[in-house]
Amino acid sequence: MGSLHENNVYFSSSKVVGEFKPLDPEEFRRQAHQMVDFIADYYKNIENYPVLSQVEPGYLRNRLPETPPYKPEPFDNILRDIQNDIIPGMTHWLSPNFFAFFPATVSSAAFVGEMLCTCFNAVGFNWLASPAATELEMVVMDWLAQLLKLPKSFMFSGSGGGVIQGTTSEAILCALVAARDRALKSLGAAGISKLVAYCSDQTHSTYSKACKLAGIFPCNIRIIPASADSNFALSPVVLRGVIEADVASGLVPLFLCASVGTTSTTAVDPVSQLAKVANEHEVWIHVDAAYGGSACICPEFRHYLDGVERVDSLSLSPHKWLLSYLDCSCLWVKKPDLLVKALNTNPEYLKNKRSELDSVVDYKDWQIGTGKRFKALRLWLIMRSYGVANLQSHIRSDVRMAKMFEGFVKSDPWFEIVVPRTFSLVCFRLNPFKESNPSYVEHLNKKLLDSVNSTGRLYMTHSVAGEVYMLRFAVGATLTEERHVCAAWKLIKESAEALLKRSYYNSV
Amino acid sequence: MGSLHENNVYFSSSKVVGEFKPLDPEEFRRQAHQMVDFIADYYKNIENYPVLSQVEPGYLRNRLPETPPYKPEPFDNILRDIQNDIIPGMTHWLSPNFFAFFPATVSSAAFVGEMLCTCFNAVGFNWLASPAATELEMVVMDWLAQLLKLPKSFMFSGSGGGVIQGTTSEAILCALVAARDRALKSLGAAGISKLVAYCSDQTHSTYSKACKLAGIFPCNIRIIPASADSNFALSPVVLRGVIEADVASGLVPLFLCASVGTTSTTAVDPVSQLAKVANEHEVWIHVDAAYGGSACICPEFRHYLDGVERVDSLSLSPHKWLLSYLDCSCLWVKKPDLLVKALNTNPEYLKNKRSELDSVVDYKDWQIGTGKRFKALRLWLIMRSYGVANLQSHIRSDVRMAKMFEGFVKSDPWFEIVVPRTFSLVCFRLNPFKESNPSYVEHLNKKLLDSVNSTGRLYMTHSVAGEVYMLRFAVGATLTEERHVCAAWKLIKESAEALLKRSYYNSV
Repeated sequence: MGSLHENNVYFSSSKVVGEFKPLDPEEFRRQAHQMVDFIADYYKNIENYPVLSQVEPGYLRNRLPETPPYKPEPFDNILRDIQNDIIPGMTHWLSPNFFAFFPATVSSAAFVGEMLCTCFNAVGFNWLASPAATELEMVVMDWLAQLLKLPKSFMFSGSGGGVIQGTTSEAILCALVAARDRALKSLGAAGISKLVAYCSDQTHSTYSKACKLAGIFPCNIRIIPASADSNFALSPVVLRGVIEADVASGLVPLFLCASVGTTSTTAVDPVSQLAKVANEHEVWIHVDAAYGGSACICPEFRHYLDGVERVDSLSLSPHKWLLSYLDCSCLWVKKPDLLVKALNTNPEYLKNKRSELDSVVDYKDWQIGTGKRFKALRLWLIMRSYGVANLQSHIRSDVRMAKMFEGFVKSDPWFEIVVPRTFSLVCFRLNPFKESNPSYVEHLNKKLLDSVNSTGRLYMTHSVAGEVYMLRFAVGATLTEERHVCAAWKLIKESAEALLKRSYYNSV
Repeated sequence: MGSLHENNVYFSSSKVVGEFKPLDPEEFRRQAHQMVDFIADYYKNIENYPVLSQVEPGYLRNRLPETPPYKPEPFDNILRDIQNDIIPGMTHWLSPNFFAFFPATVSSAAFVGEMLCTCFNAVGFNWLASPAATELEMVVMDWLAQLLKLPKSFMFSGSGGGVIQGTTSEAILCALVAARDRALKSLGAAGISKLVAYCSDQTHSTYSKACKLAGIFPCNIRIIPASADSNFALSPVVLRGVIEADVASGLVPLFLCASVGTTSTTAVDPVSQLAKVANEHEVWIHVDAAYGGSACICPEFRHYLDGVERVDSLSLSPHKWLLSYLDCSCLWVKKPDLLVKALNTNPEYLKNKRSELDSVVDYKDWQIGTGKRFKALRLWLIMRSYGVANLQSHIRSDVRMAKMFEGFVKSDPWFEIVVPRTFSLVCFRLNPFKESNPSYVEHLNKKLLDSVNSTGRLYMTHSVAGEVYMLRFAVGATLTEERHVCAAWKLIKESAEALLKRSYYNSV
């Protein structure tokens, strides 16, 4: 370590530096008000920043001191450094010109809900530690289940229940371990070598990661190709074949992850038909509706969840499309006791009469960690502040803008839609000469993507499905309005023209 | 579902309800300012609330509507309901009279840091998605490592690195899976049946849970008793014996979790000696310093980390004792490549030149989930706003108050210290007649605990170690001052007197 960390500086002083009050209510009030204005101004001016950060790796280390300060620094200096050092390194996810990945949606209601969650700092590992935190989570999970028209078997008011996790990854891991331990109960621990997990090659990469985390043998993770013919949905017929082959070779089919809205192209797996196949083999079916699930609060999209009564668990991330800020992933299960069996702990220091005598929910037994934040406040504030009517209108507005963009693409002879649009993501590409050489088209679109993103005026990303390279235009950032979508299309068009004018094709 | 969810209500309207702007900067500003005042007032008045919530299970469901509203509700109504319905159900973790579990510490700096983290809503799964989020995390993890005098081998400026996780549970799971996959590389997948994990019976229950999550066979989790003779520290001699027996029976010692500050009694395992034993057998050693680690920023406590240069990973939760609010658990590893090998994913839609060409850190490969919040802001604001001097003084102030309480106990003939104090937790019990019948003393102390907690004037919890039931008085809530500790002792004394006056002993 550098000389600053030697005993003579950090470790020499054992005297108290004045009276230190880290949570003086009036200082808190002053700083928090100041931060509110900082943030409101940031939101107001967000369009002035390049969407994709233009810094080079290592930029920040060069600007910041190597060591933390020994003495306090004024709040105004810190705010200044946030403006000067942090903001240039931000990729502005809340920019209305952010069309990359899936945008992460937000709202004033969720922000103040999050402030309140932070305020209480309740650690809701069991009921007693924060009754309101546990009970409000149970209420909002049931409310959201109602919006999605989930069957009673997923609700606390029925025979199931739900829990708010951080990410889909955690939600899937918890469900998977519940399924695994149910299976190992009869197979014995060594049976883990026989357990097989299924998904399509469009399933989020975190699913395979969860399988590996849970000790499923990598050779027993079946990633089944989904083709363009089915719009990249997993085929129940193919799944049946794969499962039957596994059974024939003495393996034990364990778990299937079906997606409602894959990350590459928002493909929707046919939940009902897949569930029929899986049910025959007592496979645990999890529906990953991280993105697409939110749309199902609108009746015109609800059919994508048809068959959900046949599945074992379902996850949906309100931080993706229900205005909740990160991180908020909802997991519903039909049999909470299986989750609890796999995940419960019962150390002496957490024992209490409520957990022993009453049938209260202790959420530590529904998740990986012990500690738990009071995230339910955010969902509660969202649902109450906006009402179902506005939430539906929010989904529809994004879909309408995506449809508009899709119209621009379709009506332009240089461009083409690569995969039919389902929700608010448009998968398209530039292909002016209807070229059949895939590597040329890929090269061209990579150039276009770089050229557009380097302007800082919007941010899009790409994907590849069925070996086709495509650009993804994901509408959904909370501040996006029609004018941003129109301006984005104009920029994409102009960049394509400039690219072609430079006679790129001839020079290859 | 109830009649309210039928098509005629939720699903009938497809028209937009006015223009819905969930993040209008001026509405945001108004509501957030209002919430700041609500919270500052809550902090100001927090002593007026009973520390431990006095509600009965199910209280909230009875107060809230069964269904979410179709139309928006005014913000003022929601704030009113928070006051009337939520606050009575809170166990007030921030109350200065909260002495339960380990208090979760907070600060104005962390609060505004968290506001800013929420504001940006950056999803830092890879460098490009938010360069500042990744780089600031790297900087603050190195800063904190310096405060702890960790060797360079745990720092980015050396050959290691760190990551902010949500909970210790996740941190341990990630380290464990890295160790597991390193071992399985040579053993093959079936080798998982041979892998053995070690801890003491004082290790946090989440460790065994992490082992099970990772597929370690339950029969291969060795929970080694730690006795009162060693102040509940794990004995290196006993560990060696257990490891050697496992090796002799053809098993493969994999992982050891050593604690610096256990949850029951803040026992400290002898890291250096345990590491020597573990190193001989190529066992991955993780140090769980969730609570006690924070104290090691003071030179007088740093020796508890002696030997850390011999371990593989270390976790510490600033949300416990470094003023950070939930959730913030720091994990340092010596060999980040092992973590990345076990946890990386590389889906097409996240591919980018920075990740491919530059050696940037993509934090999705250091954790369970893909998504990641910009939590580094909190630690940065804490370290800058307060400086090392105040952070040390904060630790010392808590320890001083615990010492004072320890003095009260020691000087009172009715009470006794059960385990010597190490940090800011005092483990004690009422034992006026120096009774040797353990079930009587346990009964008496349970009565005392119930009696004290039911007043709502403070909240303490209990534990059992070495079969001894004890009360835990954990000093650390940020607002706690000496007067609260004095008042707490007075209440405990009075409650004990009342209990004994009721001639409890004779009536048994």
